[in-house]
Amino acid sequence: MFAIKPLNPQFDALISDKIKQKTKPLGALGLLEPLAQHLVKILSQQIENEDEFLGFQPMINQPTLIVFAGDHGVAAQGVSIAPSEVTAQMLANFVAGGAAINVFCNQLGWQLEIADCGTLTKVRNAGIRDCRLGDITEPLNQHRAMSTEQVQQGFSNAKQLVLELKSSGCNTLALGEMGIGNTTSAAAIMAAMLELPASECVGKGTGVSDEVVARKVKVVEQALLLHKAQLDNPVTLLAALGGFEVVHIVGAMLSAAEQQMVVLVDGFICTAAALVAIAINPDVKAYLIFAHSSNEQGHCKMLAHLEVRALLQLELRLGEGTGAALSLPLLQSALGFYNKMASFADAAVDDVV
Amino acid sequence: MFAIKPLNPQFDALISDKIKQKTKPLGALGLLEPLAQHLVKILSQQIENEDEFLGFQPMINQPTLIVFAGDHGVAAQGVSIAPSEVTAQMLANFVAGGAAINVFCNQLGWQLEIADCGTLTKVRNAGIRDCRLGDITEPLNQHRAMSTEQVQQGFSNAKQLVLELKSSGCNTLALGEMGIGNTTSAAAIMAAMLELPASECVGKGTGVSDEVVARKVKVVEQALLLHKAQLDNPVTLLAALGGFEVVHIVGAMLSAAEQQMVVLVDGFICTAAALVAIAINPDVKAYLIFAHSSNEQGHCKMLAHLEVRALLQLELRLGEGTGAALSLPLLQSALGFYNKMASFADAAVDDVV
Repeated sequence: MFAIKPLNPQFDALISDKIKQKTKPLGALGLLEPLAQHLVKILSQQIENEDEFLGFQPMINQPTLIVFAGDHGVAAQGVSIAPSEVTAQMLANFVAGGAAINVFCNQLGWQLEIADCGTLTKVRNAGIRDCRLGDITEPLNQHRAMSTEQVQQGFSNAKQLVLELKSSGCNTLALGEMGIGNTTSAAAIMAAMLELPASECVGKGTGVSDEVVARKVKVVEQALLLHKAQLDNPVTLLAALGGFEVVHIVGAMLSAAEQQMVVLVDGFICTAAALVAIAINPDVKAYLIFAHSSNEQGHCKMLAHLEVRALLQLELRLGEGTGAALSLPLLQSALGFYNKMASFADAAVDDVV
Repeated sequence: MFAIKPLNPQFDALISDKIKQKTKPLGALGLLEPLAQHLVKILSQQIENEDEFLGFQPMINQPTLIVFAGDHGVAAQGVSIAPSEVTAQMLANFVAGGAAINVFCNQLGWQLEIADCGTLTKVRNAGIRDCRLGDITEPLNQHRAMSTEQVQQGFSNAKQLVLELKSSGCNTLALGEMGIGNTTSAAAIMAAMLELPASECVGKGTGVSDEVVARKVKVVEQALLLHKAQLDNPVTLLAALGGFEVVHIVGAMLSAAEQQMVVLVDGFICTAAALVAIAINPDVKAYLIFAHSSNEQGHCKMLAHLEVRALLQLELRLGEGTGAALSLPLLQSALGFYNKMASFADAAVDDVV
């Protein structure tokens, strides 16, 4: 379903030479240097030859953040600080502009899209994109969360949305989520993908007690046992353990990579989705930029497993794509120094390296 | 010379109550929450009563970043990757707009001021503020770097500059530096202030070899021994071990705190300057926000000693105030969520905490 091109390395040397010539000691801009290399590489994939490349100014265009919302049957089992009703209440808050993600998107220049992937209470509002796969998933420790047809429908919805954004000029996509109970689903996905015990994958989510953590561990253990036969295929794994919003995030990552867009990955839930996307098609990974490393205990382990480093460490544990949103200025700074800083020759500064 | 008011805690409870009522689990915005509390506290110091406070929207106004440049006699002793001439070349690059700090200031909305505190080659340009205390400091392992009169003159220059910025409407100041050899000066200041061996304070600067690191350690040890009798007073310590730009940074921190401005501290050199400023007047500390934790080995130790945590960890080792510059969007996001996010009551979201 997803035909992702591996990144073509044809301009790699030109990109790194340009970075080396900037008026600063080599490497002195730290993580912004590999970030610039990575971004310019993705953004120059459509460029055909060296002449065209030399005249090219890579820019982030119409950056768009999609918050995918979905409800989780497992939430009724006391694994969250809030009831499932809060998912729909927050959807309404997103369209009214009152949530953290609204503030950050307005401030930083993100276009914000809100997608209802299936919530217990349907919020009727023209500002919400209908991607509903149902009202709520089945409790993952008792049934498959959803069918594989629902997974495929979620992928298809996500692909259509990404294609629309791409055709309107967007080249950078960030993915966020809202869904009461979704850290339990993400922990189960992580445990299955990395073959780790549940206790190493479950964390406090948005802030539950130790007792609730113990219950989450138990629920994840039950789910892993119940769905054991489904876990060696990423699509059946997702049907067994995923959430409606998680399925859309996986689909959006794969579709955006297919369109050769830059994809910003937010926190714990999105990183678990990235594990599944990479299992479906490993070439997606080259298009992903990891925005934020949260305190959710499993998150650091997933990032280490993927051998990536996140740009920000702000102890966020809100979701909504907030970590991805906050990282945009760093991407712009990386491209800014690449495009605009003087070279040693331009500025008549001794090349001190 | 600096009359700094301790921060008045009169609105502390109102600020934290407002943060608690935002539509998110308590603490879910991580470091942005204490950052908002801190910023609003500083920015509301002029407000007289609760009614006025409730109508107040704290904002960052005319944020200004000053790069102070100065040359160091010790640079001739092989402690740097570049000769002192590069300081003036980079000053010219700053006024021409080609350096990293220019790119970041333009992108992020900083007003940029360039101050020549004393460079080997004088750059004549109307865009450079003349704060010259000499051409270059004495090598700190052979003589006092400068006289205490020069230190006082630097403080006075910095105070005048800060007063001008304050009267033009600036309420947020970031301090950066350029000066070949200044990590050696900063390491010596750190060693003296924290009473640590030179080897725990010296690092690779912008990227020197292990051999050069060994030479830097030796130079710092010589300096600490030579000036032993001067190190228990922060002004004589600064005269012995400082740099012309370092003295201005210390003065600017103290002056900006006196004006109750938000002060963003950049990397290793600025943090060493902060140690001295705090020794001169401990009340300055409440006005400081630490922007970036670099890989320079001593930097983390200084931040730990000060019991502060920096906002960004980007492995920058350039100076120029780049870390402080890059942190501005996080400050704006912290104030943004404080001013603009809906409360649970506004948004009809269940208060889930």
